Amino acid sequence: MKFLNLLLLAIPASIFLQLSGYSPVLLFVAAGLSIIPLAGYMGKATEEIALYVGPRVGGLLNATFGNAAELIITIFALKAGLYEVVKASITGSIIGNLLLVLGLSMLLGGFKFKIQKFNRATAGVHTSMLLMAVTGLIIPAVFLQTHTNPAAEPFSLGVAGVLMLVYVLSLVFSLHTHKDVYRPSLEHAETPNWSKLKAFTVLLVATLFVVLESEFLVAGIEPVVKTLGISELFIGVIVIPIIGNAAEHSTSVIMALKNKMDISLEIAIGSSTQIALFVAPLLVFLGYFMGQPLDLIFTTYELVVIIMATVITAMISMDGRSNWLEGAQLLSAYAIMAIAFLFV
Amino acid sequence: MKFLNLLLLAIPASIFLQLSGYSPVLLFVAAGLSIIPLAGYMGKATEEIALYVGPRVGGLLNATFGNAAELIITIFALKAGLYEVVKASITGSIIGNLLLVLGLSMLLGGFKFKIQKFNRATAGVHTSMLLMAVTGLIIPAVFLQTHTNPAAEPFSLGVAGVLMLVYVLSLVFSLHTHKDVYRPSLEHAETPNWSKLKAFTVLLVATLFVVLESEFLVAGIEPVVKTLGISELFIGVIVIPIIGNAAEHSTSVIMALKNKMDISLEIAIGSSTQIALFVAPLLVFLGYFMGQPLDLIFTTYELVVIIMATVITAMISMDGRSNWLEGAQLLSAYAIMAIAFLFV
Amino acid sequence: MKFLNLLLLAIPASIFLQLSGYSPVLLFVAAGLSIIPLAGYMGKATEEIALYVGPRVGGLLNATFGNAAELIITIFALKAGLYEVVKASITGSIIGNLLLVLGLSMLLGGFKFKIQKFNRATAGVHTSMLLMAVTGLIIPAVFLQTHTNPAAEPFSLGVAGVLMLVYVLSLVFSLHTHKDVYRPSLEHAETPNWSKLKAFTVLLVATLFVVLESEFLVAGIEPVVKTLGISELFIGVIVIPIIGNAAEHSTSVIMALKNKMDISLEIAIGSSTQIALFVAPLLVFLGYFMGQPLDLIFTTYELVVIIMATVITAMISMDGRSNWLEGAQLLSAYAIMAIAFLFV
Repeated sequence: MKFLNLLLLAIPASIFLQLSGYSPVLLFVAAGLSIIPLAGYMGKATEEIALYVGPRVGGLLNATFGNAAELIITIFALKAGLYEVVKASITGSIIGNLLLVLGLSMLLGGFKFKIQKFNRATAGVHTSMLLMAVTGLIIPAVFLQTHTNPAAEPFSLGVAGVLMLVYVLSLVFSLHTHKDVYRPSLEHAETPNWSKLKAFTVLLVATLFVVLESEFLVAGIEPVVKTLGISELFIGVIVIPIIGNAAEHSTSVIMALKNKMDISLEIAIGSSTQIALFVAPLLVFLGYFMGQPLDLIFTTYELVVIIMATVITAMISMDGRSNWLEGAQLLSAYAIMAIAFLFV
Repeated sequence: MKFLNLLLLAIPASIFLQLSGYSPVLLFVAAGLSIIPLAGYMGKATEEIALYVGPRVGGLLNATFGNAAELIITIFALKAGLYEVVKASITGSIIGNLLLVLGLSMLLGGFKFKIQKFNRATAGVHTSMLLMAVTGLIIPAVFLQTHTNPAAEPFSLGVAGVLMLVYVLSLVFSLHTHKDVYRPSLEHAETPNWSKLKAFTVLLVATLFVVLESEFLVAGIEPVVKTLGISELFIGVIVIPIIGNAAEHSTSVIMALKNKMDISLEIAIGSSTQIALFVAPLLVFLGYFMGQPLDLIFTTYELVVIIMATVITAMISMDGRSNWLEGAQLLSAYAIMAIAFLFV
Repeated sequence: MKFLNLLLLAIPASIFLQLSGYSPVLLFVAAGLSIIPLAGYMGKATEEIALYVGPRVGGLLNATFGNAAELIITIFALKAGLYEVVKASITGSIIGNLLLVLGLSMLLGGFKFKIQKFNRATAGVHTSMLLMAVTGLIIPAVFLQTHTNPAAEPFSLGVAGVLMLVYVLSLVFSLHTHKDVYRPSLEHAETPNWSKLKAFTVLLVATLFVVLESEFLVAGIEPVVKTLGISELFIGVIVIPIIGNAAEHSTSVIMALKNKMDISLEIAIGSSTQIALFVAPLLVFLGYFMGQPLDLIFTTYELVVIIMATVITAMISMDGRSNWLEGAQLLSAYAIMAIAFLFV
């Protein structure tokens, strides 16, 4: 976290760049860098508050605000009408969590420990949940792609409703009826490190700054595309997900280095699931109310990378063991997918 | 069954509606409702006869006539040249069995029992058989879709021949060489409840009425499409499979409520496999002899839902345990797929 | 091997046919037949040399020259600009190894032993490696198919680089850091049957003849297509992989008949993995240097058969058991895919 704190210096830099209008590209960079530690503080503050309110409400908080920073960025992108960026960042978050984060965790953890073990049953529950979530994105996308002129808007809303319902049911399952099965790793009660006041203050301040910097970041997308020749798609698939999840990613890697692969898996797979079941449908609803309707038509390429990332993760987590090569394989799958987006 | 018997009243109603020519839509509804209990009696009578003829021939009977009602409906649809309806009902039967039936069984069973267990090995055998069967449908469909002007008819016949051969081999496997591995749940010998005469009489009468009502039902498809604005595809994917399998579905749910998930799984997965390996190729052959050649070109959307349903089922049955959330997930996948067909 | 030696008579026959210019079709047949035993001798000689140089370098040799015969054929096809044949033979090798070889092994082994067992963990390592390899082929193909005018050449080179890197890492893994996990079946040290001199001489002579016969074979493709009406695709997908791997295939079947399914699986899955991770990228690099750039754009049909073959193999090898029906299922999947290529 100490290293990440240095990135907070990007906040004043971004404000200066915004006021001076000096370089929109540098503003994009500064805004992006500043969101990394801010997202980390939002996550940390949410966890602290969760410890005060008990496991059930706490679990709900963690589940709801787990991807808050990314949600804020995508809301601004949606407001700006950057639909492709929004959908690309949904894709990018899913494959980033599954391939980049899990890959890095397994690689670095695997350098330290020859074979790392984790609970197959729990991993199985997470994986089949992920598969359902991904199905919820794939089915409507394929349908909308292959059928001309269907009523894309009401259909997307209907599907978003079903996805959100599954999300609520999964919370009932994991926090209420089967909490012992779903998250055994969270059972050991932790004590909070921050006072309630501190936690709430940090959450409030960090969220406000994330909102500000997200506005800067989204405003900078067009200049960056024009100046640097990077595609919108690349920004959506690679840059935004890394910015929004960097803090969380480092936690996953740290847990792998402590040989707690169960937690690494939970972060990576759980976060992907949440994107598909909660963030994506929420964006559909918000788009509808904002008058910027977002459909769920992903491109064939996006669908294929989502499916492959899911299948690979399922396959690799099936045996309850990981090693450095599996990490390298996940990372190389990520690299191949990312190389493709560079060439768009 | 008692509640279902009430639906038999739809038989005289349908005959009256047919003779009076009053309302083709009501005729469609009455015919559909009447097939539900009739299909149930066909299944029950087949099981009773199977108990008299010994496990081997009995297993053969059950396997061959398990989807007889649906086969009769689709033969009439084929005769009427409703190729899309026929293929849609093949798709619908597979996803209906895997997602709707198994989903409902796991949901309701899961409300009663926190975790339900079943034999992983047996589930694995069924699932890999299902996967092979589905492959047999997917490969030719993708090929015919992506290659212009191939000889669709001889190719479909050739593939149907291979599928049918695999079906015969799977019967040899499950009823002869490996009967202990494949269907342990059927090993405990049951005694018949009906006399031979009763069983044969019920089978004959029920089949005759199913034939009659199927003719009414298929004749009503066009009026229903015109009057109610429901698509042919929706009727094929959702309505026909539910009508043809309702009785069997209720057995699966009842078994889940008795905590016999092995039997629920066997019904759901086995029935889907049979559709792909036996009903689909049989329709191809019949179409050829009837001069109404049926190709195996499913739409991309149909292929994707079949694949996703298969993968989800494989994933969920892999750990030998089920709970209510898995049931809800299967049902919501079904809901999303069904919503799509409504919007065609 | 004795029976295969008879096929060496095809060498003088092919030379006669080449010199006389009598029948290009017969030349194609003779060249194809002669490669079968030659490829076997190349493999045998490599294994013998591997035993002299110790397990690490030996493993490297086996891994690198395991598909040498096929590599030579495809290099000539590439030189002749037969890109579709090259890509088809990559597809054909993967599905041939997974469905034909493994299917035949499980079928014949299953006739002799009711249930054959193998190490699930090792099979899992091989399968997830295969899945990664296949992903490396699928992702760029889908990307290049769905995006118009991307820089296919640099992109293919970049992806080939990543695939090759993963291959090198997998060798480090299997021969160095985790050699105990990856190839337990190779742990029992064997003693060489041939002297070093004999092994090197056989390798040299067999390779030289394979080069010669490959040139004949590739030159005969066009005449065969014109005369017999068989498609280039069929030659690439079915004929070339069978010629190049026949000797290896017979080893796999022999091992299955000795109830050593672990080795059968290793041959089939390992060989497929090697095609995707080593042969395919190597051909991309060679094509670049030869001025015959090979992209990695497989057709949709090729991608689907590769994916289905991989998923089926993963599914069937997951439970650590095989039986004759699984073999028959794999073979029938191969038959369906092959029938399709006949109809192109």
